[in-house]
Amino acid sequence: MIESNKKYVIGLDFGTDSCRALIVDVCNGHEVATGVSFYPRWKAGLYCDARCNRYRQHPLDYMESMTEAVHMALSHLEKEEVASICGLCFDTTGSTPVLTDRDGMPLALRPEFAEEPDAMFILWKDHTAVREAEQINTLIRERNLDYLIYEGGTYSSEWVWSKVLHVINTNPAVRDAAYSWAEHCDWMTGLVTGNTIPEKMFRSRCAAGHKAMWHESWGLPSFSVLLELNPSLRNILPHLFTETYTSDTHAGALTTEWAARLGLPQGIAVAVGALDAHMGAVGASVAPGVLTRIMGTSTCDIMVAEKTEIGDRCIEGICGQVDGSVLPGFIGFEAGQSAFGDIYAWFAKMLSWALKNIPETEAGQQALDDMLTGLTREAQGIELSEDNIVALDWMNGRRTPYADQSVKGAIAGLTLGSTAPEIFKALVEATAFGSRRIVEHMKSQGLRIDSVNAIGGISKKAPFVMQTLADVLGMPIRIVRSEQTCALGAAMFAAVAAGVYPTVEEAMRYMGSDIEIEYRPDTGRKKIYEILYRKYLQLARNAEIINHTNH
Amino acid sequence: MIESNKKYVIGLDFGTDSCRALIVDVCNGHEVATGVSFYPRWKAGLYCDARCNRYRQHPLDYMESMTEAVHMALSHLEKEEVASICGLCFDTTGSTPVLTDRDGMPLALRPEFAEEPDAMFILWKDHTAVREAEQINTLIRERNLDYLIYEGGTYSSEWVWSKVLHVINTNPAVRDAAYSWAEHCDWMTGLVTGNTIPEKMFRSRCAAGHKAMWHESWGLPSFSVLLELNPSLRNILPHLFTETYTSDTHAGALTTEWAARLGLPQGIAVAVGALDAHMGAVGASVAPGVLTRIMGTSTCDIMVAEKTEIGDRCIEGICGQVDGSVLPGFIGFEAGQSAFGDIYAWFAKMLSWALKNIPETEAGQQALDDMLTGLTREAQGIELSEDNIVALDWMNGRRTPYADQSVKGAIAGLTLGSTAPEIFKALVEATAFGSRRIVEHMKSQGLRIDSVNAIGGISKKAPFVMQTLADVLGMPIRIVRSEQTCALGAAMFAAVAAGVYPTVEEAMRYMGSDIEIEYRPDTGRKKIYEILYRKYLQLARNAEIINHTNH
Repeated sequence: MIESNKKYVIGLDFGTDSCRALIVDVCNGHEVATGVSFYPRWKAGLYCDARCNRYRQHPLDYMESMTEAVHMALSHLEKEEVASICGLCFDTTGSTPVLTDRDGMPLALRPEFAEEPDAMFILWKDHTAVREAEQINTLIRERNLDYLIYEGGTYSSEWVWSKVLHVINTNPAVRDAAYSWAEHCDWMTGLVTGNTIPEKMFRSRCAAGHKAMWHESWGLPSFSVLLELNPSLRNILPHLFTETYTSDTHAGALTTEWAARLGLPQGIAVAVGALDAHMGAVGASVAPGVLTRIMGTSTCDIMVAEKTEIGDRCIEGICGQVDGSVLPGFIGFEAGQSAFGDIYAWFAKMLSWALKNIPETEAGQQALDDMLTGLTREAQGIELSEDNIVALDWMNGRRTPYADQSVKGAIAGLTLGSTAPEIFKALVEATAFGSRRIVEHMKSQGLRIDSVNAIGGISKKAPFVMQTLADVLGMPIRIVRSEQTCALGAAMFAAVAAGVYPTVEEAMRYMGSDIEIEYRPDTGRKKIYEILYRKYLQLARNAEIINHTNH
Repeated sequence: MIESNKKYVIGLDFGTDSCRALIVDVCNGHEVATGVSFYPRWKAGLYCDARCNRYRQHPLDYMESMTEAVHMALSHLEKEEVASICGLCFDTTGSTPVLTDRDGMPLALRPEFAEEPDAMFILWKDHTAVREAEQINTLIRERNLDYLIYEGGTYSSEWVWSKVLHVINTNPAVRDAAYSWAEHCDWMTGLVTGNTIPEKMFRSRCAAGHKAMWHESWGLPSFSVLLELNPSLRNILPHLFTETYTSDTHAGALTTEWAARLGLPQGIAVAVGALDAHMGAVGASVAPGVLTRIMGTSTCDIMVAEKTEIGDRCIEGICGQVDGSVLPGFIGFEAGQSAFGDIYAWFAKMLSWALKNIPETEAGQQALDDMLTGLTREAQGIELSEDNIVALDWMNGRRTPYADQSVKGAIAGLTLGSTAPEIFKALVEATAFGSRRIVEHMKSQGLRIDSVNAIGGISKKAPFVMQTLADVLGMPIRIVRSEQTCALGAAMFAAVAAGVYPTVEEAMRYMGSDIEIEYRPDTGRKKIYEILYRKYLQLARNAEIINHTNH
């Protein structure tokens, strides 16, 4: 029996590989049921080419996986419980845009483009638009324009304008068919509310502000500037937007068609979507002074601050500051490390050369996982010393501070006695030093950081990494218990859109997850880490010089 | 049948692990027979402790292995051929000193010290005397003394005074029994000529000049200075030497006892000994303008120059310049890289962590060798690019220029795609860049280098390394055919001491080995190697800064 006043909401989290549906009790944040569905075409490796960093996802993958994930979650519920679901909200990766037709539907849904990667969603980690990003940065610098002052100063190849421009520049058929573009989170919301019309669709403040150079004072960049990049953009620019919305906004009601398809009550509230990391921070009960870190292959670091605290200051060298991108009414900040867990995985992969041809199978992956377990076990036993190896965590470039994809990683302090676990320990410390550098940069820019909340795979399964991070930062790190904070954050916004709570802060108060573990800094290690951190900074300076030694 | 005027000489080469006896025809340098014997106690790991870099060798190891090696070589000869042997000469590692009694015999030959490591020979690579080397350097700098101006400016923990002082400082029993000290090459010569009396023994110019701060203008450093290091040295200093001898000097005749023990004709000429690398250069037909590189785990780089060319100039930052240490009548120069092949072996060992517990057996060594073969094969296929990984070859400190054992190695330019063979290629290039830096340093100090001759294990068995070296240096590298150039050089000096040739240049003319292979530089790679070399120099500057970041 369920209480008659029970109310549930559903958060739909679209990750890189799968869609997760999380059903949450609005009264207490209890995670009632969950369903996960992997994108079938993506899993089969379709439309991608790792050699040129081309990563595309078919809209049908999203539609099919969403349906399956929701069905899976609902299968755990009583009929009355299903009926108690009153709100829905999406979070997705980003910038993951798609070119659309006049109806706001992805071009890949048309028969003639069904197999055309350029007509599909261009996943956040797609790097085909490096040249276009340079073109944008050059133009903005030459014209001395303001468009990047809230985006950390550099436009990325991972962001929407670079990607749209790349397709327009290289694929005439798609260029001629394109009427507008949409971010993944916007299109999902539009799809299930029956409002994908490009000029009317509810656009996420979060995605537009962090990825599209949108700002309330100017909207999107001016047509005249964008047309200089490619005049063909004239077919698209009139069909975009000037307004954007925070996720506490009611974007519409679930259509009859999608209610039937998903098995949800029709007409329930759908909130405006947002990017996954930002919703994850909300799921982790973000607040001013708390740095929320989504820690996995890379990190995404989210902060919020009172508008009165920031005024009209621009925080340099981060990945964007956007009014309302995380919490409505607060400035949201995004930063991060381009590689984190990926560096550990790289080292195991590099070592595995010794094992000859590890298969690209689950067994092969298990061998790499076992290697990481062994490296961690031995690294934990190594005494901390100022003479230890020091590494630089830029193996995938640097995101924050001052994004630069061209810089590279390094390892110094090697002797003939250096072992694989010693190097591994140095790599773990390097990722922690990279974190410290971000924290110090943000503080130096006037942002207050009192504590760190961590979510994501690394925070759950790598206690050695987390303890090292606490020691290096000299701050306690709290691991949020929920395994699905992104979906939980989306569920909170769904509760607001459904009218259960007036604000998302109120939703966080009732629905927020608690802290599972706290890693406390070992102050005895502070002195040695100070020395090693100074060596890290020197290694960073050196990497910059070496990077400019070509030609 | 042999010709009646046939004359043979024997070179006895004491390496780190074994003694090699080489019998050579004086007429044509033909290598008639050879015998190799591994030191039995050393092979069993006795008296050493790798954790504290203590490496000691028992005098009985030398005596027994010499006897066995000579017997093995002689077993290939007819009786008449044995009778035709007319001279003998030793080369040994160094500085490898021992504390002796009043008779010049190693203290370890006395029953009470038979198992005492401090009473044995202290092998060149023993690093127990790091503190004493600092003490010596500090004193010489504070007093502003000249003793190091011909030794490159820094006294090493690998050299005789550091080692003697360390034993005197730490072992009262040995200190009280010590009457003098002897270098390995001097003691061997003294032993077989029946002249080990410390005050009368023929001391090698090469060993004394490069390792003991001996110079013809002052002899050994003054008693008063040395006594400041430890007053107990007063029991030793009066029993040393002021004169030293080049290896074309007849040191004495083989005693009846040692002739019987070795199976050699009694009374044959024994030349003054010298260090192995210097004799190796002679075996490789050293001449002004030719850099001779002994390439193995580390490199030893030997040059000679006309006295008139050098005058009274001091070449800075090398390991010593000594009149007659290589060729009598010429200034001999020593430089080198602290690690060369050792770096490749280190990398394979580091990678082998992935294989778990490789046994310390021949099978385990074979696995490491196979790994190096595989790394080399794959590294050869990697395209040279200015974006490649760059490494610094200081994993065992830096020998030349400006010796500094405390600096360390590094690897930069790493990405998440970096593979083990790519890193290996960078390590090979790093050792070549280290070589280029030595060549450029020597040239900048006014030494002429027209070509490079290489000897030693790496030169024979690592064509990829040698071709890379030629490309990086932009100079042809000639590999000397003889596999035993150190023993061959000793045999040449034996021929001079025996009166067969008036000078060692004359002996080289008739007995010298020819060139087996010439590696020619690929000029197409020059431009990219110039860029990578600049990155290497930047990495070197950075390593110096990081090294001074402690405290």
